Amino acid sequence: MNTKTRVINYILSLLIGLNFIGITEAKEKVVDITAFGANSGDGSDTAPAVCAALEQCKKIRARKLVFPKGRYDFRPDRASEKYVYVSNNDESLKRIAFLLSGIENLEIDGQGSEFIFHGFIAPFVLDHAKNITLKNFSMDWVRTFHSEGVILDVKDDSVDVFFSEQFPYRIENGTLVFTDSDRIVYPFGSWLEFDSRKRETAYQAQDYGTRQNIQAQEISKGRVRLMRPKLKATVGNVFVFGAGHRLCPGITISDSINTKITGVNIYHCGGMGVIVQRSNNIELDQVKVTPSLNSGRILSITADATHFVNCTGKIIMSNCLFENQKDDATNIHGIYARIIKQLAPNEIEVKLVHPQQHGFDFIKPGIKLELVHSPSIITYGEAVVKSVLRLNKEFTRVVFKADLPKEMVEGDAVASLEGYPEVNINHCIIRNNRARGILLGSRAKMVIEDNTFHTPGAAILFEGDARYWYEQAGVRDCIIRRNLFDNCNFGVWGNACIQVGSGIEKSCQAISRYNRGIVIDDNTFRIFDPRLLNIYSVDGLIFRNNKIEKSIDYPAQNQNAKPFEINNCDNVKIEEK
Amino acid sequence: MNTKTRVINYILSLLIGLNFIGITEAKEKVVDITAFGANSGDGSDTAPAVCAALEQCKKIRARKLVFPKGRYDFRPDRASEKYVYVSNNDESLKRIAFLLSGIENLEIDGQGSEFIFHGFIAPFVLDHAKNITLKNFSMDWVRTFHSEGVILDVKDDSVDVFFSEQFPYRIENGTLVFTDSDRIVYPFGSWLEFDSRKRETAYQAQDYGTRQNIQAQEISKGRVRLMRPKLKATVGNVFVFGAGHRLCPGITISDSINTKITGVNIYHCGGMGVIVQRSNNIELDQVKVTPSLNSGRILSITADATHFVNCTGKIIMSNCLFENQKDDATNIHGIYARIIKQLAPNEIEVKLVHPQQHGFDFIKPGIKLELVHSPSIITYGEAVVKSVLRLNKEFTRVVFKADLPKEMVEGDAVASLEGYPEVNINHCIIRNNRARGILLGSRAKMVIEDNTFHTPGAAILFEGDARYWYEQAGVRDCIIRRNLFDNCNFGVWGNACIQVGSGIEKSCQAISRYNRGIVIDDNTFRIFDPRLLNIYSVDGLIFRNNKIEKSIDYPAQNQNAKPFEINNCDNVKIEEK
Repeated sequence: MNTKTRVINYILSLLIGLNFIGITEAKEKVVDITAFGANSGDGSDTAPAVCAALEQCKKIRARKLVFPKGRYDFRPDRASEKYVYVSNNDESLKRIAFLLSGIENLEIDGQGSEFIFHGFIAPFVLDHAKNITLKNFSMDWVRTFHSEGVILDVKDDSVDVFFSEQFPYRIENGTLVFTDSDRIVYPFGSWLEFDSRKRETAYQAQDYGTRQNIQAQEISKGRVRLMRPKLKATVGNVFVFGAGHRLCPGITISDSINTKITGVNIYHCGGMGVIVQRSNNIELDQVKVTPSLNSGRILSITADATHFVNCTGKIIMSNCLFENQKDDATNIHGIYARIIKQLAPNEIEVKLVHPQQHGFDFIKPGIKLELVHSPSIITYGEAVVKSVLRLNKEFTRVVFKADLPKEMVEGDAVASLEGYPEVNINHCIIRNNRARGILLGSRAKMVIEDNTFHTPGAAILFEGDARYWYEQAGVRDCIIRRNLFDNCNFGVWGNACIQVGSGIEKSCQAISRYNRGIVIDDNTFRIFDPRLLNIYSVDGLIFRNNKIEKSIDYPAQNQNAKPFEINNCDNVKIEEK
Repeated sequence: MNTKTRVINYILSLLIGLNFIGITEAKEKVVDITAFGANSGDGSDTAPAVCAALEQCKKIRARKLVFPKGRYDFRPDRASEKYVYVSNNDESLKRIAFLLSGIENLEIDGQGSEFIFHGFIAPFVLDHAKNITLKNFSMDWVRTFHSEGVILDVKDDSVDVFFSEQFPYRIENGTLVFTDSDRIVYPFGSWLEFDSRKRETAYQAQDYGTRQNIQAQEISKGRVRLMRPKLKATVGNVFVFGAGHRLCPGITISDSINTKITGVNIYHCGGMGVIVQRSNNIELDQVKVTPSLNSGRILSITADATHFVNCTGKIIMSNCLFENQKDDATNIHGIYARIIKQLAPNEIEVKLVHPQQHGFDFIKPGIKLELVHSPSIITYGEAVVKSVLRLNKEFTRVVFKADLPKEMVEGDAVASLEGYPEVNINHCIIRNNRARGILLGSRAKMVIEDNTFHTPGAAILFEGDARYWYEQAGVRDCIIRRNLFDNCNFGVWGNACIQVGSGIEKSCQAISRYNRGIVIDDNTFRIFDPRLLNIYSVDGLIFRNNKIEKSIDYPAQNQNAKPFEINNCDNVKIEEK
């Protein structure tokens, strides 16, 4: 063996040695939260311990952060802080209990613990994180972002409601203001009646009001008279006063890779339960969005249970329960930015229009964008980005590698063509929430199987538009099989169990084919309302082997409506048994 | 010459050559805003042009950015954006017309231009900038952040006011809401009566209300009845409804060195006019804070004209006019952070308590802090910072190089000992604004000379406290000479022309000597109210060669009060002529 060989061998042995040590150490590297001053059950603030423990995890590349089973309280005071733009929720400088920024290969195991939050704090934010698992804990709040009042009396010009001590309030200058023991105000936006017996939105109930200034009088402790005429309400039911903002989503995942959430109960949060943006591969298994049993509340969380924006790779949701939340169970889509003006043959200025999309910077040099006409949402071209100048969270100037098509007009939109997520939603229960079940808008394969739906609106909705919500959608290969649609459409948010709601201008529906390749196979529809399917501008849909059962669980309505409302579609095959 | 020498000479010549080119180029490097698409007078948005021009200035190291004389409009839409913490103003994600971040050696010359702003946009933010001059322009808004209503009728239970089209409003659910042509809401906090003839705060007028929900009715276009009983008001005077927030200060200077502002008229802004924090050397010459003549408004800006926090080097203000603004003309002080708890013999957790001090990160490794007892504001120790852990904008953990004194208790405070600014305020006119004239709190030499004061509160106030405002003050060498105090104290914000208002607990005033070394020499006091001086806890004050003139310009009041109210002081010498 010559010197050179000896040196190489020595270096190799060092490398192997280091690697070997690395592996063994990593296996043992478990960080226990109690080593950082966290005490379960004593009400003390766990946020600083998490902060320190995550620093340690980063430092020693720990594989696990564990919580001995117990109750851990989290307050905003000493929590981490970051200005976060969260799609479909509200941007803000947020206090965050678990800020996993750039962290890799970590499992956070609550071992069955309860995480209890106080005030305006966001539980989890993953940002440029990789291989993160969150498991075995529940999250709840001492004071919810929404409020619930039991309806005591309904008159022509007023309704009396009763607020338990869970929902502190005060009457300020004759208007109702929700607060907490620290006198922090919890703004509300609209309110909605829930059926307290069925524990779901009341039959055909509508959202009331959009402003926070309801004239109100306190009649006695907890009993408040809402001075608004002609409210439709049933004594014994519950008015849910929705949270005015979505500042504290449960789990926010941004620009991250490989995230798994399992055995997590989201009893409450102030925004969406799990919101995932610009991330690759997300799996939810046994995630439950539901009101905590001992709270007696009728609402779980204040917005969608889950939501996925511009994601790629795989989205898997298995064995989940999404119930009683204030909005849809999921929505999987991309984002359109509006073309404001053409600055040069190969340059445009675009705007993120919807305020809850501000700061959603998805346009990067090198990526391919589609160009669509907004009224039809028809894609007429593609363009590769050369450079990007972000003016601010709304406006961005984009230079392309080649000149843009002549047919481009201001008001058109662009969206990413850089991959869509494959989706599998299976063995989930979706029920009793406001609005719809699942909104499907990925152009990769989507499989929806073995789920149960009981939603006041459509169970499955194909949306997408480039003029209002600016959500890029349009499925290409979507299988809906072996699901139970159980008495859907008892509310006001839909017109069939499975429905297209894409924002295509009436005059364009004949030429647009926004959704394609849908198979609805081997499902059971239990219906009191005949409307099974309402679609337009679809190319390719098969409806086959489905069982239709009549139900009398709700007042019969729309008895003369067609089960299949199909307009401006090609290649639709309906096989009724 | 050997090879080595030749190489060295060659390199030297290259270096000299490069340097020489650098200097000549820099001398010529003037950037004209019109080269970037700015058009004066056409109402188009100048913000994107400024953005691009500043980029160019940075790139070519330009010495000047010039505006051909004209009117330039600035809108928030495409302006730069940054989350800014501004002491004594409101933090937020701000749109900024001129964001000078890290820019050096630049003069921005408006050449007499008007800069007109629309909506929520901050005109200037200097951040880590060096050698910046701002000159020869005015700033104003199309819609002010405050509103003014002429008092038409005063009844026991209501007051009718008239709003001109300058101050759009609407009645929403029976309450008064100020708005603009874009229906953006302009929240207000409190309101105050101004004397429309004298163009100053009305004699003995007080701030009314702190909430935005005044019950109101529109009687006819522009005429609004405010349903609030027992308002004191005089027909013909003006109610000024103060801006609810301080989000858009005129010129914000943070962590910068050598800033000069000259020939700048600040007709309006939504916050302080010039707010300077953690900066070294600032000169204001011929800066005028005043309502624009052709607007007919009675209020200039919505908060203090100027304000300096934790500054060092020199602060010079010459030939300035500070009138009709909604708060003091200046306030020069440091910041105390409250000691929340001791974590180790050499470690504490501190909090920035006042919300408008959040994010004011002044504690850095290596600096020296003073330790003070909050009730007395007595400094009992010093400590050198070893390391700092910022939890968030409120809480910071500080480790010191040595153990802390035993007498330290939780609730004490810390402030920087790293230098104070020498101050010279000369030939300024300060008048007609709400509250006080100048608040002096630097421990370096302060010279206040040849100014004219006509303020409803104290003309000169020595403040500072560690329990409410958390403003570090306490002068050591302060000369007040050749000033005219012209009928001060016609309002409710003071008890003498020159006054101590430091927040020292009553029981501590006998032992505390917070302000020291004050000389009041050769001034003229024109007074309708006998109270000249009201001080406590001062060590060293000389009052000499001052001329006292009696006036009948305001109703006589406090005729039995003592001209000199001196309590718990040492070494005070009053020489009356």
